[in-house]
Formats: sequence, structure tokens, C-alpha cells
Amino acid sequence: MQVPDGDDRPRAVCGQCGHVQYVNPKLIVGCLAEHDGRVLLCKRAIEPRLGYWTLPAGFMELHETTAEGAARETHEEACAQVDDLQLYTVINVPHISQVYLIYRGRLRDGTHAPGLESLETQLVTPDDIPWDDLAFPTMRCTLQHYVRDLADGVFPTHTDTIASPPKVPRPVD
Amino acid sequence: MQVPDGDDRPRAVCGQCGHVQYVNPKLIVGCLAEHDGRVLLCKRAIEPRLGYWTLPAGFMELHETTAEGAARETHEEACAQVDDLQLYTVINVPHISQVYLIYRGRLRDGTHAPGLESLETQLVTPDDIPWDDLAFPTMRCTLQHYVRDLADGVFPTHTDTIASPPKVPRPVD
Repeated sequence: MQVPDGDDRPRAVCGQCGHVQYVNPKLIVGCLAEHDGRVLLCKRAIEPRLGYWTLPAGFMELHETTAEGAARETHEEACAQVDDLQLYTVINVPHISQVYLIYRGRLRDGTHAPGLESLETQLVTPDDIPWDDLAFPTMRCTLQHYVRDLADGVFPTHTDTIASPPKVPRPVD
Repeated sequence: MQVPDGDDRPRAVCGQCGHVQYVNPKLIVGCLAEHDGRVLLCKRAIEPRLGYWTLPAGFMELHETTAEGAARETHEEACAQVDDLQLYTVINVPHISQVYLIYRGRLRDGTHAPGLESLETQLVTPDDIPWDDLAFPTMRCTLQHYVRDLADGVFPTHTDTIASPPKVPRPVD
């Protein structure tokens, strides 16, 4: 690692050709898909957090828009089509250098089914959200905004930051 | 390039250890900083678009939030401090796999000066925005929203996509 000319932080630089390998935060895109007053959730079939519930979401790919990526992930994880996507939450997770962009949308025809990365998909009412079995704090945060916003029927774009969890000392044996 | 197990697109995979080198879109973060009814612009001292005007912005770095990155870039390019940042535009540029997040904020004390990557910084009134000399379509898009929103004094978060410029055939000599 060395600080390139005109830069202010160490980067991976090739000793042969001088190529600088920039590493930047990753974007995760996903959907809160509604149908008949219910929300689409997926039970994860893969680590991390296998067996826990999430909104369909995943890493944004090259040459797509954030909304296209959110729709693609919803199709991949829940075999579902979504329409009328509106940006709903922008959530920073700086300790792992991730930014989540979650869109709110409408499930096209109410159909869904587990994709390769899901064990199960379900439409749940706001009262039935499995708060204790959610996979990620970003999904909890998005669903909390949603439950609050349902009360007045206005769904603005929310921005949030998830802080690093406090370091808990390991218990001594 | 090969398609890793369980994946659906080619990635750079190490033939020795199997490590997959994922390449994802980059986030660019920046600020529309206001002071006394004027907006802070920077004249670029570097390529691309050297000599053209931009809002201060740059690649998001690891372990910062989008708002922290926007404030950092404003300090680096315009030696300015910003407060009360609100997410203002989210602009996709899929043909170059970039996503811009521009915040609207308040210049702390009205002071600014060119940083290393700027030739000049200026506070301009909406009437004096140099529309023909802006560096990037994303900045034009953000400033267009701003001029429209000034009329009614409401500044919601806008989402947009900048399409690839049409391919113009090279003139035959």
C-alpha cells in the first residue's frame, strides 16, 4: 500500500505498472414490495443470516440503474415482478462500507416464489412482521419507517446510518 | 472471465485460488452548498472536463457515510464547511456504472477557496449558473431541480437517470 501522487490515503498500487486499485463502498439495492396491504419477505437460504427474513436485495451490478437492480434482485430472490418503484430508504453502514438503497413498489400480480437464494417467500401484514427474525438492521430500519409511514399514508425518502454494533467482550470460560 | 458457481454472469476469477474479483458500480457524493441565496461552484483543475464548472463531488471512500463523503469532497475541492446536509438528488449513470448522491446543505460561514483539484470557486446566484460551461450532466440535472424547487421552496429527494449520449458518427474527411 502507498499513497499515490496527489492522493491523501494509502491504496494498493502495482509495483510494476503503477496501476492503482481503488476500493470503494458497495451499493446494495432492494425492494419493499406491497400487495393488498402486505409486504413481500424472503427467508434466506444462504449465509450470512441463513434462515432469517429479509426484503429481497443484493449487490448492484455494472450497467444497471439502482431501480433496475432492485427489480432484478426481487425477481432473483422472490420470482416476483415489481412496478412503480419509488426510492424509499438510503441507509449507510459505514463500518462495512455499504450503502443500501431500498425502493418501495407494487407487486405486479401478487405472485411470488423462492428463488435460489431463498428458502421461502411470504406476504405478511405489518402486524405479522417477524421483528425478532429479521436478517439485517437495514431491513429492520426500512420496515420500521414503513410501519410508521403507513399511519399517515406518506412515504418520503428516508436517510439513515446504522452504527457499528458495540464490541461485547467475550465471556471468560 | 468465468461464471462462478451459483452466479449468472462472468467475473474475474483467479485460476490459482478461485478468488472472485467482483466489480460493482461506484458512488459519487457531493454537495449543493447554499449561502445567501447563492450556490457554491468549483472550476475543475483536473481532467476530465478541466476548466468546466461543477458542484464539489468525488468518489465515496471506505468507512464513511454518504453525507460525510459529500462534506469531505466539499472541503477538499472548495475548502468549505457545510452543515444541515439533506439528500437532494440520486442520479444513475448506468453506461459508466456510477451513482451520484448529491446533498443540499448550508455553507457554514460563507468562506470558500479553491482546493487542489479546483482552479477557482464561486458563489453564484441561480440566474448566473453557467449552464453552457457545466462539467457533467449530473450537475446540470441537480441544478435544474434546484432552480425549479426554489420557486416553491420545497426540496424533496429527486431520482433520475442520465442516458448514454447518442453515438454520433464521425464526419468523413
